Amino acid sequence: MERLPGFRDFYPEPLPDGEAWSASVRKDIFESWHNVAERYAFQLYDGPPLEPLSLFTAKSGQEIVGQLYNFEDKGERAVALRPEMTPTVARMVAARERHYKKPIKWYSIPQLFRYERQQKGRLREHFQFNADIFGEADPAADAELIAMLIDLLRDFDLTAEDFVIRLSSRNAWQDFFNQNGGDESKAYDFYQAVDKLERTAPEESEKKFQALGFTLEQVHNFIAAGEPTDELQAVLDNLAARGMSDFVKIDYNVIRGLAYYTGVVYEAFDRHGKFRAIAGGGRYDQLVSLVSGGKKNIPAAGFAMGDVVLVELLKDRKLLPEIHGNIEIYALLEDESKRPATLSMIQMLREEGWNVEYPLAPIKPDKQFRRALELGAELTVRIDDDESAVLKNLNTKIEKKMPIHELAEHLFKTICENDLE
Amino acid sequence: MERLPGFRDFYPEPLPDGEAWSASVRKDIFESWHNVAERYAFQLYDGPPLEPLSLFTAKSGQEIVGQLYNFEDKGERAVALRPEMTPTVARMVAARERHYKKPIKWYSIPQLFRYERQQKGRLREHFQFNADIFGEADPAADAELIAMLIDLLRDFDLTAEDFVIRLSSRNAWQDFFNQNGGDESKAYDFYQAVDKLERTAPEESEKKFQALGFTLEQVHNFIAAGEPTDELQAVLDNLAARGMSDFVKIDYNVIRGLAYYTGVVYEAFDRHGKFRAIAGGGRYDQLVSLVSGGKKNIPAAGFAMGDVVLVELLKDRKLLPEIHGNIEIYALLEDESKRPATLSMIQMLREEGWNVEYPLAPIKPDKQFRRALELGAELTVRIDDDESAVLKNLNTKIEKKMPIHELAEHLFKTICENDLE
Repeated sequence: MERLPGFRDFYPEPLPDGEAWSASVRKDIFESWHNVAERYAFQLYDGPPLEPLSLFTAKSGQEIVGQLYNFEDKGERAVALRPEMTPTVARMVAARERHYKKPIKWYSIPQLFRYERQQKGRLREHFQFNADIFGEADPAADAELIAMLIDLLRDFDLTAEDFVIRLSSRNAWQDFFNQNGGDESKAYDFYQAVDKLERTAPEESEKKFQALGFTLEQVHNFIAAGEPTDELQAVLDNLAARGMSDFVKIDYNVIRGLAYYTGVVYEAFDRHGKFRAIAGGGRYDQLVSLVSGGKKNIPAAGFAMGDVVLVELLKDRKLLPEIHGNIEIYALLEDESKRPATLSMIQMLREEGWNVEYPLAPIKPDKQFRRALELGAELTVRIDDDESAVLKNLNTKIEKKMPIHELAEHLFKTICENDLE
Repeated sequence: MERLPGFRDFYPEPLPDGEAWSASVRKDIFESWHNVAERYAFQLYDGPPLEPLSLFTAKSGQEIVGQLYNFEDKGERAVALRPEMTPTVARMVAARERHYKKPIKWYSIPQLFRYERQQKGRLREHFQFNADIFGEADPAADAELIAMLIDLLRDFDLTAEDFVIRLSSRNAWQDFFNQNGGDESKAYDFYQAVDKLERTAPEESEKKFQALGFTLEQVHNFIAAGEPTDELQAVLDNLAARGMSDFVKIDYNVIRGLAYYTGVVYEAFDRHGKFRAIAGGGRYDQLVSLVSGGKKNIPAAGFAMGDVVLVELLKDRKLLPEIHGNIEIYALLEDESKRPATLSMIQMLREEGWNVEYPLAPIKPDKQFRRALELGAELTVRIDDDESAVLKNLNTKIEKKMPIHELAEHLFKTICENDLE
């Protein structure tokens, strides 16, 4: 029996014949995400993986349905597996925002789902780090988010040589569009044309822009000038104060495809240009109002970073977290008569917090020893007599006999202070 | 817009008017689960939340479909949100078991989904700790799992006064059934009747057993005798060697409803009898064969513990993990001219690993101070002049001025050694 196409199994370690992904890599990455978010004083939340379909169509229109895992449940509700986290967090904030002092700084690490029929070989699920700030309209909030994004990437030892945040502004594009006589009802088509500019043949882009009353040259000139707006300058100054200027540049090629962005927008890119965007975000001050049917009006900004491109990038730069076995001690069992005393010793060690493995069923001593090595254990321990045990450091090969009740203390010295004399 | 009935939002902290659940409680519980599993040398895995429907019907028959979130995807595949983890792990092990030395000791913390139309007010999703040992038929594997279950509960400070593992055996029941002339084709009906015995009126149980050729008295006598089989005695001896005898008792009322158990079975119960089972498991030596269409034959045993009953129990015993704000330092901003220097200082502190919050937009100093207290920060810090900062311990109220470059060292002493002189 096979798993569904586009879904991943997470085996404990990366498969020799497969992807870089594994449960241990995922756990390391999530731990890093949690740590950085906590340093930035963001608080963890989560919502349901299954939501009413209308939550997503309210935000993105009916056209999103073609990309969803949507179905009717047994209670005849139109439901969908979440394709993104922003509508859920907007719903949650709208429901309880009066209970919170502003700004609200929240993060989450949801698994998300998209079903696009044509995408052969593309994943249909991924994990995503999501962060949002609600209730603060100042660009200081955008800068705080961008700084966290930079530190999320630096936490994996990526540097300014590896990635850059391309910073842009919906407001700047909107001003350009209005000042040059754009028709407001076609603004979204214009943003879409800009969003696809780098991936579209110039003749085609030229046609698109002329239909909207612009020339491709006008658009190119605006991008080339790259004059920061006041809000972008405030973001740049804020990041400069943090020593982060090397990680960010103004780049009006970025505009973000979705309709609901309203201010600062940005995307993180690999400097070598090998991968899709690593992360993206911006300001969406109208979204909570949209999701709450106009009842709540709270400024908001946020970004998301998926796990898939990040892992590809880390693998490319040889920065993937190393897989370390989590077994510290292997308890050897010379003969079965010693099993009760060995189990008692193992229990004592585990209660002290050590990760301990041992042979569940009788196997030969040399096989046990090989197993200890295969598992990457640092030490073996075996009962010697009623009172004492023998500890062996598998790196130094030094053995030491000691009273069983002194084991815990010796282990602390051996592993934590690297000192088995 | 509302979330779906039966699903939970996880706000950062428990809602004053709601359930005990929150993202922070969930994170604490998961961390405990990870730690105990690692001490027992289990390795983390995960699989897709969406699987082919046939994976679940192969194991549990068509009748399970009525309890599932199942639908047809856009590729016309019959799929279902996973209602349990065991079929997925059996599928994963069957696919790659030759790459692993036995025994395989794996754990996972999946979110699971059930749609039962009649269950008003019942949750339709929950999280579950799952652990399995593959490739070891000896009862030592069952004992290792039960010991871990005991330590998972003890890790929340639950004691032998709070819970007990009721230990039973499918083999013992099967022997009883065969020795008393039971018709093998009706064995599953018999197990079902035993499983429901404690929740069924005696007259009804009497009728059920008589239809199968037994008397209720026969069944009651077998339960009352409670003679451990050899394999159960081996489990008891193994747990006794670990000092865990107080946490386990033979109780043939337990049999586990599902068809596929083959040996030792058990359930963890609240001693006060207030809640449903906390956890349950057993041996299912045929399951990998079933899921792999007979291609692989690997003995297996495991258990699962959900988050919902556990949290109810911990709340009842006042043992829920305490909610601690994760903010250590609040940086005060006396006036906006100091923002760049303050951002620089914050960046330095965050890079040292401290969790730091500060006012994103200009607010009055007394409001900032109140915010620091509300957030549960331990310290405030503010830029004094170009060279120095003032640190204040919010518990002792002691203030200290020091050069900015000495801050990190002082903070370490203050928070880690509780010493702000």
